[in-house]
Amino acid sequence: MTTFHPAPEALLPAAAAGVSRHVVVAPGMCSGGSLVFGRIGDWTWEVVAESCRINVHAARTAAGDPAYLSFYYFHVRGGDVVHPHGLTFGDELRVDSRSFRFGSQSVITLHRLAPAGLELPAGPLDPAEVYENPHPHCLYAENFNRWIARTTAGSNRDLAQVTPPDFAYQELAPLPNAYSPRSLVGRARATGSFHPEGPPGFHEAGQPVTFPYTLDVVRDLNGAGLMYFASYFAVFDTMLLRLWRSLGRTDEQFLRRKVTDQKIGYFGNADPGTGFTVTVRRWRSTASPDVEVADMALRDSATGRLIAVTAIETETEAAGAS
Amino acid sequence: MTTFHPAPEALLPAAAAGVSRHVVVAPGMCSGGSLVFGRIGDWTWEVVAESCRINVHAARTAAGDPAYLSFYYFHVRGGDVVHPHGLTFGDELRVDSRSFRFGSQSVITLHRLAPAGLELPAGPLDPAEVYENPHPHCLYAENFNRWIARTTAGSNRDLAQVTPPDFAYQELAPLPNAYSPRSLVGRARATGSFHPEGPPGFHEAGQPVTFPYTLDVVRDLNGAGLMYFASYFAVFDTMLLRLWRSLGRTDEQFLRRKVTDQKIGYFGNADPGTGFTVTVRRWRSTASPDVEVADMALRDSATGRLIAVTAIETETEAAGAS
Repeated sequence: MTTFHPAPEALLPAAAAGVSRHVVVAPGMCSGGSLVFGRIGDWTWEVVAESCRINVHAARTAAGDPAYLSFYYFHVRGGDVVHPHGLTFGDELRVDSRSFRFGSQSVITLHRLAPAGLELPAGPLDPAEVYENPHPHCLYAENFNRWIARTTAGSNRDLAQVTPPDFAYQELAPLPNAYSPRSLVGRARATGSFHPEGPPGFHEAGQPVTFPYTLDVVRDLNGAGLMYFASYFAVFDTMLLRLWRSLGRTDEQFLRRKVTDQKIGYFGNADPGTGFTVTVRRWRSTASPDVEVADMALRDSATGRLIAVTAIETETEAAGAS
Repeated sequence: MTTFHPAPEALLPAAAAGVSRHVVVAPGMCSGGSLVFGRIGDWTWEVVAESCRINVHAARTAAGDPAYLSFYYFHVRGGDVVHPHGLTFGDELRVDSRSFRFGSQSVITLHRLAPAGLELPAGPLDPAEVYENPHPHCLYAENFNRWIARTTAGSNRDLAQVTPPDFAYQELAPLPNAYSPRSLVGRARATGSFHPEGPPGFHEAGQPVTFPYTLDVVRDLNGAGLMYFASYFAVFDTMLLRLWRSLGRTDEQFLRRKVTDQKIGYFGNADPGTGFTVTVRRWRSTASPDVEVADMALRDSATGRLIAVTAIETETEAAGAS
């Protein structure tokens, strides 16, 4: 009988310098809604657990209440070989991941998903590569996580920032200030958009549209009863599909879409029964008409409270001139 | 930098006797639709790959076309400690898995998910434990997989059974005939129900109801463009939730449901755009009114073709007398 155990001794040395793994893509980590984003998020939790010597999966506040390493900002960039909706089973990847110090209540984790066998720089994942000099074949992900706790038992509203006492972030390398996503995310939270004035080099295509969405009790909640960070990707993709259908595009075009960049800012959570209103704007690149950005804001319909914001840059294949 | 590699040499000896692993439950393997079922299915593929020395994730027919180790029957039994919708992050499990010989085109894989630290029999997972003497705390899963291939490129209809030439099933222990699910599954396929006459000791509660469902292009397809086996759980749960709401039950009751037994038979696949009709019947235990069975058949609305059948046994908490 074979026993799988990540040998503990193999994880300890210099975990703060990152983790590298060989991954064979399985059905549970591609398509199926937002499985690839869920898996990347699980890797973030693992790397933070190893780097900061904390039981991330069962963390507690100083008062003993459950603390969650929530996703506050998820940024992914698709490469020309590895991109989020282009994976299929059997694809082999090398995944390098590393967490960076970002204050006492939060942490930044970077991932590079490379085709296995690609020649890559030696040593731990360098933020300069991720932010300034990405390899064109690779998918990169940036996760900005904050520790939160419920302020009212059983309610997903009014979550508060906390610092679990055993979050040993001090040994992490700091994220260079130039790469901090704080102001980008703060602006998206304040304005309800990652592109309040539109992306440079793009022109708005059509009028903004608004779609309703109701929290899916079966699919949108995680094991702690909170709205699941990966589900936000599926919710926004559901809106993107509605938009594309309204433009006469086919489901097959949607399924073949290539996401070159997607950002989500998570600014609220929600309880079962919540109805949302999603406002969608669309821009098209002036130079490359097959490149589009869809910008969406998800709000609680009853209160107008901003729950999340996304910007999705796609290369649309044969999208036509609509 | 830490490198995660399942050391190949650790997997080779006696893989046919099974695999045991320690698992810390992550967000990506609980709730969120059907993540736990997706993860169990991924373990099935891994165990078959190791036991039969075949690249399951990128398998090919003799003609060189993609072959998929499809799920034909998925049976899960919930225990009083570990049950499918009762997992949350940080739960620690010991998972034992083992594949069994079941002809040249199919394979049976059994899994036991036990609370970590539970005292368990030594040695490889014994089918007699799974089928006759399950530990009351554990979740057991039985996966009956068949090799299939598309007969028309790009179409999810008319999938054919195949035998990949490098499927080395001969070294697997055979599944004792007494445990074969073939006749159970064959009857479900022929009658459209796992309980054509109702489960013994149960009486039918209410009239059968019928719900429409449309294939969810965002969430229901896998990385090969086929309807994802784990999504069938989410689809049937969506119908169960509609049924429960129609009975005046709350979303909170639904989220707290305990599934003690669920079977799915997969008899067809479907293309994007397919509309389904789901017929739901409900039985209540005569001796224990909080125990119910919901039996559902999912059919292609246009053709009436049977796509899948499920039976879900739940213990409903404070379900009332409806």
